[in-house]
Amino acid sequence: MRLSQLFARTLREAPADAEAPSHQLLIRAAFIRRLMAGVYIMLPLGFRSLRKIEEIVRSEMDGAGAQEIRMPILLPSEPWKITGRWQAYGNEMFKLVDRGGRDLGLGPTQEEVVTPLVAAEFRSYRDLPVNLYQVEWKYRDELRPRFGLVRGREFLMKDAYSFDADVEGMRRSYEVMVEAYRRVFDRCSLDYGVVEADSGLIGGDVNHEFLARTAVGEDVFVVCENGDYAADLEAATYQSGDEASDEELAPLTEVATPGRHTVRDVVDFLGQAPSQLLKTLMYRADGSPVAVLVAGDRDVNEHKLGRALGAREVRMFTDDDFAASGLVKGYLGPQSLPADVTIVADRSVRGGRNWITGANQVDQHVTGANEGRDFRVDRWEDVGLVREGDRCPRCGGSLRLERAIVVGHTYQLGTRYSKPLRATFLDETGNEKPYLMGCYGIGISRILAAVAEQHRDDRGLIWPKALAPYQLVVIAANMDQPEVVRTAECLYEKLLSQGHEVVFDDRDVTAGVKFADADLVGYPAQLVVGSRGLRSGTVDLKLRSSGERIQAPIDDAPSAVARLLQEAP
Amino acid sequence: MRLSQLFARTLREAPADAEAPSHQLLIRAAFIRRLMAGVYIMLPLGFRSLRKIEEIVRSEMDGAGAQEIRMPILLPSEPWKITGRWQAYGNEMFKLVDRGGRDLGLGPTQEEVVTPLVAAEFRSYRDLPVNLYQVEWKYRDELRPRFGLVRGREFLMKDAYSFDADVEGMRRSYEVMVEAYRRVFDRCSLDYGVVEADSGLIGGDVNHEFLARTAVGEDVFVVCENGDYAADLEAATYQSGDEASDEELAPLTEVATPGRHTVRDVVDFLGQAPSQLLKTLMYRADGSPVAVLVAGDRDVNEHKLGRALGAREVRMFTDDDFAASGLVKGYLGPQSLPADVTIVADRSVRGGRNWITGANQVDQHVTGANEGRDFRVDRWEDVGLVREGDRCPRCGGSLRLERAIVVGHTYQLGTRYSKPLRATFLDETGNEKPYLMGCYGIGISRILAAVAEQHRDDRGLIWPKALAPYQLVVIAANMDQPEVVRTAECLYEKLLSQGHEVVFDDRDVTAGVKFADADLVGYPAQLVVGSRGLRSGTVDLKLRSSGERIQAPIDDAPSAVARLLQEAP
Repeated sequence: MRLSQLFARTLREAPADAEAPSHQLLIRAAFIRRLMAGVYIMLPLGFRSLRKIEEIVRSEMDGAGAQEIRMPILLPSEPWKITGRWQAYGNEMFKLVDRGGRDLGLGPTQEEVVTPLVAAEFRSYRDLPVNLYQVEWKYRDELRPRFGLVRGREFLMKDAYSFDADVEGMRRSYEVMVEAYRRVFDRCSLDYGVVEADSGLIGGDVNHEFLARTAVGEDVFVVCENGDYAADLEAATYQSGDEASDEELAPLTEVATPGRHTVRDVVDFLGQAPSQLLKTLMYRADGSPVAVLVAGDRDVNEHKLGRALGAREVRMFTDDDFAASGLVKGYLGPQSLPADVTIVADRSVRGGRNWITGANQVDQHVTGANEGRDFRVDRWEDVGLVREGDRCPRCGGSLRLERAIVVGHTYQLGTRYSKPLRATFLDETGNEKPYLMGCYGIGISRILAAVAEQHRDDRGLIWPKALAPYQLVVIAANMDQPEVVRTAECLYEKLLSQGHEVVFDDRDVTAGVKFADADLVGYPAQLVVGSRGLRSGTVDLKLRSSGERIQAPIDDAPSAVARLLQEAP
Repeated sequence: MRLSQLFARTLREAPADAEAPSHQLLIRAAFIRRLMAGVYIMLPLGFRSLRKIEEIVRSEMDGAGAQEIRMPILLPSEPWKITGRWQAYGNEMFKLVDRGGRDLGLGPTQEEVVTPLVAAEFRSYRDLPVNLYQVEWKYRDELRPRFGLVRGREFLMKDAYSFDADVEGMRRSYEVMVEAYRRVFDRCSLDYGVVEADSGLIGGDVNHEFLARTAVGEDVFVVCENGDYAADLEAATYQSGDEASDEELAPLTEVATPGRHTVRDVVDFLGQAPSQLLKTLMYRADGSPVAVLVAGDRDVNEHKLGRALGAREVRMFTDDDFAASGLVKGYLGPQSLPADVTIVADRSVRGGRNWITGANQVDQHVTGANEGRDFRVDRWEDVGLVREGDRCPRCGGSLRLERAIVVGHTYQLGTRYSKPLRATFLDETGNEKPYLMGCYGIGISRILAAVAEQHRDDRGLIWPKALAPYQLVVIAANMDQPEVVRTAECLYEKLLSQGHEVVFDDRDVTAGVKFADADLVGYPAQLVVGSRGLRSGTVDLKLRSSGERIQAPIDDAPSAVARLLQEAP
């Protein structure tokens, strides 16, 4: 391909809305263009790299025995209503009505399609296990699309679904996929880790996220300084101190705290530490009122709260909820909460005594509040959000918070979908049993962004060979010198005929612009034909990753390029 | 792949809603499954064949110099509102609203995306021509989805868009695409023709359809017995007799026709031929009332009517329109129509005299109605629908109506999109000029159906090699005989290692079931290992297309297979 014709005009500046370096570079280097929030056009360069990731994923899926199919994007709502996800996804799922008035959705994942499909075809335990996958665009109406391809509303995903006859089989299928995932991310040259994660709207018990470590990821994960624990922040836990306080029980005393309703305001006013204040937060869990008690220096992890309560939907009280309940927002305490409110206390609260908390009146708090004497706790649970410096649940070491991009997520679903959808097979004894399922996602367009984030410098992108749109650019440095152009063109044609993925920069621009663009786009290797070199019969080669430069005689250039590309990562 | 594991369970019966043979066979042979009306799941076999078509299309597009990109399916509505297609598509376009309240559509084609894209990147005449294409699923909320993959609501299409600086360039780009299309359809072994067509909702002047001739196509086209004219029915024209009638003008006379309002009822009652009755049909063309006059034995071609009037939308009067206008439905005549009604007469009416037509009163017609004396005609146009036996516009030969599946459609768009979207480039003199565009579609999922329709017999599908999901099936005829199974497995492994696309029928079913399934799925070649052959050291080979059978010594089987596949179409 000649760059004078390639539909790829690089930009000197990134658009203002591009925050992440990968996003800026993918736009500047003409890999992608924004159509609207969270929705991108893949230009020829971006499309080629995307296809390479797709083919790596495909080969590892095929190699792991999964079979490729293609499921529709446009989906009927009925099975989603049966599994409860039509409602659970809410307006994160794109929904529409067809001309016949039927509810349809755009697939965010495809459990509701693949489960009935398998149940209709593979009816016997002898047919199992089976693993079906597809590579297709997915849709989520994200509240805040971010970082270009990282958190999009339209994104390319590989999704696989395994069906087994029993739990052991499900676990084996899961392990096979996890191994295939490792090979995919290795082949994509990603620096990644595997962590325990929250199953979110997908459900099931065991699940893992594959995280590409980046400075500006959309995801936060927790990692122990000793390397023995890693988890997504949504799923992470920590060791809570279980030493009970031996303080004397103080009397429950009301104190006026006019206009002070943040934790910081109240404890400063009373000359205490935030950890001495007991926060009381009101939620609705599947509609029922729940009060969550947590120390003033910690936040609630709503994902853990939902799981602890077995609730599908957890949300904070709205102003309407407060008005209807008669509770006083900003001055809540657990004393005298109505009996129909379930009081859940985070286990970090267990040993505490003489709490400061709200007095359930405007501008009033209490001191000396104590569990048992002054308020009840219905359930003790682990619902606190991990903070930097918390203790590792495995070894007690210090936990760190890091950022990452989630590039894969695997789930052991069990019967989460097969049961409600009545998807069953006949076991050895002729009984109907629900399939044990797993599901496995890889964010293909997201990998493009994650690799760009990890492989770059201040001049541009540095593609690993396996993902580069082209391996090599041939640059004619002096377009006004026919001998330079002729030699460059001849080398380009020769490399092309040898099967190299090569572009020829034949544009009528300065050598400086060509060098800058070559570095920006990030071809693994560059071959420069210039007038100075020609005089001594040589061309210049450069490896983008290391910056290494060598000279080669013109005749030897093709084999020198091949050797250089061997070296490239 | 072993058939015991392949996710493909064949069916003895097709579902009741599958009308076309290709639809029935693609379901029975486990290529596709229906998810809902007009929306299908591609099973592993169907997916493989679909990908082969996709790769043929891709290689011909690349070879023709087009560059592959990928545009979103989820589209903002704004540019569609500017081109007028948001309204023109109406509820044939799937529309939705995102969580921010913004109107979005699912792409039926992508002119509104690609035109601004090119205008933002290729600003100079020196950048042109450029041709961008993609292979992506498209969406149309068809009123009547039919024939499986033939008329779906979700379908895989290759769409290309050329941009040129002038009309000559546009025509050259168009020719290049037409040639590439011929190569695509040839490589897919389609029996097809190219016809003049109606440009429908896409617009532009010159356009052609590529039609695969089939008995049950969704499209009707017109072809001359002498082979010099072919056109889509929507676009077709014919030679009208221009001999004027020399009948004496009869007086205009009212006749009572109680309860008779169809053409047949009225002419039978009056003892005349249908051609003697003048039909008066009321339309709204972009809102304005239009009366169309056409002989009683001919229908109106609404596509031609829309083009003749330059109207974006043409629709028949509703009951409300009749009520508001005071016109009498069922008894309309052109006499004394209000001045604001444009009266368009089909040219076939030109020579006629003494028409029978409605009297504009219930149960009343008139005879002896004559143009000029009794009614006016504002415009004479060619708006009649071609009938079997009409005369060819080129040679006067007899026209025939045939059925087909439209597998490709090419358009010279001119400035249909670049003008309203203000998509311009700078010409040699520094002036802004709108691009001259072409657009080019290939129905990839539709080709799968068209090939299945053309290549089949009463036992099943007969895939051409280029599109077969696998080239070859190895059948172990006697699963109870270890030597048969061992030999078959060994041959399968050997063929696999030689790079053949081969499946091994290792299922624990009878030989009869395996033979029937092999014929149903339509692998080009079959290799059968049976106990009788083994005794004489041979296996049986069969070519699906011709039914030709040969025996080969076991050791020679792999090379005999290779020779047989050479012969296969």
